[in-house]
Amino acid sequence: MNTDWIAVDWGTSSLRAWAMGADDTVLADAQCAKGMGTVTPAAFESTLLELITPWLENARLPVQIIACGMIGARQGWVEAPYASVPCLPISASLTKAPTADPRINVHIVSGLSQNTPADVMRGEETQIAGFQAEFPKFDGIICLPGTHTKWAHVSAGEVVSFQSFMTGELFAFLSQHSVLKHSLRDGIWDDTAFDDAVSDSLSRPERICAKLFSLRAEDLLHGLNGGAGKARLSGLLIGAELAAAKPYWLGQMVALIGADGLTDLYATALKSQGIIAQRTDSTDMTLAGLKSARASILE
Amino acid sequence: MNTDWIAVDWGTSSLRAWAMGADDTVLADAQCAKGMGTVTPAAFESTLLELITPWLENARLPVQIIACGMIGARQGWVEAPYASVPCLPISASLTKAPTADPRINVHIVSGLSQNTPADVMRGEETQIAGFQAEFPKFDGIICLPGTHTKWAHVSAGEVVSFQSFMTGELFAFLSQHSVLKHSLRDGIWDDTAFDDAVSDSLSRPERICAKLFSLRAEDLLHGLNGGAGKARLSGLLIGAELAAAKPYWLGQMVALIGADGLTDLYATALKSQGIIAQRTDSTDMTLAGLKSARASILE
Repeated sequence: MNTDWIAVDWGTSSLRAWAMGADDTVLADAQCAKGMGTVTPAAFESTLLELITPWLENARLPVQIIACGMIGARQGWVEAPYASVPCLPISASLTKAPTADPRINVHIVSGLSQNTPADVMRGEETQIAGFQAEFPKFDGIICLPGTHTKWAHVSAGEVVSFQSFMTGELFAFLSQHSVLKHSLRDGIWDDTAFDDAVSDSLSRPERICAKLFSLRAEDLLHGLNGGAGKARLSGLLIGAELAAAKPYWLGQMVALIGADGLTDLYATALKSQGIIAQRTDSTDMTLAGLKSARASILE
Repeated sequence: MNTDWIAVDWGTSSLRAWAMGADDTVLADAQCAKGMGTVTPAAFESTLLELITPWLENARLPVQIIACGMIGARQGWVEAPYASVPCLPISASLTKAPTADPRINVHIVSGLSQNTPADVMRGEETQIAGFQAEFPKFDGIICLPGTHTKWAHVSAGEVVSFQSFMTGELFAFLSQHSVLKHSLRDGIWDDTAFDDAVSDSLSRPERICAKLFSLRAEDLLHGLNGGAGKARLSGLLIGAELAAAKPYWLGQMVALIGADGLTDLYATALKSQGIIAQRTDSTDMTLAGLKSARASILE
């Protein structure tokens, strides 16, 4: 195996790496749960080496490593300063991380920031760059559902503006830790409950705070079927997000980048508003984006 | 000390009791952290006895105990079935809890339920009854801020309708456990940040989901003063609650029952909307309500 370079996606809760051939084919990939949030700054290099050492054996040294994600935050390996929108999702200047091992050479992709309204992203810019590499003519809105969902307006190759929503983190808290957890049992997902909640939340978004507790009360008083509670909570939150993100998607081309199950939900909710969203996988887009970043360095 | 009867407020996270004289004066009080959520059903009686045994010594036995709160839930000592609104906050029929010790006689106050929109309360009905005992002519809206804030429409002595909000639980999660915690440092509370956030949230409540993450981003990009983050988060959430609860308070007499700091915030937010709310302490109202419940049994 002749590793030409290594692509790395290092987020808060996981680390994933790909050994890449000279023609940008994937030779191997590896991942572990050692997210940037669980590793002390002194251990970033050794943690990465643990995962990728086998790939260095027959490679021409030093091997170039291109990384994206929270690893470039202030608390990360090295701070890769934000690029301020409007700008390309990945600029030519990557930030070099300090390393002790002479076999590797690590560059980190910058996140994006927006001055007003204040907003930041780290990792999603790489997915957006990957999407642009795959669909170079796309002009419109890219939505990246996740813990902190991002909506980005992309035009003429640049990210013009973007907006983050805490929908994923709120869903995780409300379904696993709040008083609602007692009423959100596992069960067959209830599509109708989801659709109704999206529509409810979109038409009366100011009522979202009032609707949450009623999930618990309805279950206590009338009983909720297995998957109905979770579907309704998800629909309420995604509906409220769509209501707030309306200036982004209304009358626009929308592309979704994310994990299958989650983009399904966003696609369903958007469809109820007449928007047929294009769907792509976040891992594919991350890898495509890291290839773009690598190419920008070679230029 | 001649204990005539004992008042008990037993919520999810704490237990409080008062030894009451024949003229309804407080002879002694005691509390502990053994909330109903931390005690196994078999241990309810022994947990209460641990707290109140000293008061039984010179009392005429059996001593009547009147309890309110989550202790009357399905998972509590005995289920005190909900009374359905519209109804008096405390009906004459309390539910007797099974006891082994012949020295005590325990009665639990029922919570209230509402069929549509589904809603429930346990504990707040006693505070509402206490408020009515203190202010018998009040007709209007009672707001009880807390983990699950309640808004109740009270008229001609009855609770006509009510609505719960998860504002307190959301604030605790967002400020202590979410990504925002890094930006919500302790510091001098920023009144202006609170006022601005209330106004912002009230005028554009559908943007609440978009505003949350921007607290983090603003801190990363521009820095947030000590208490500004917490004040803004609190303002955003209370503003969104007021927006959803508008059909309750708009043009109405409003009374607040709660802990000092929290009712301060609600009073300030309501004042910005031209509502001067009457304020009372939740412990005082609970005790007054338990006295009413005791009186209803004696009738």
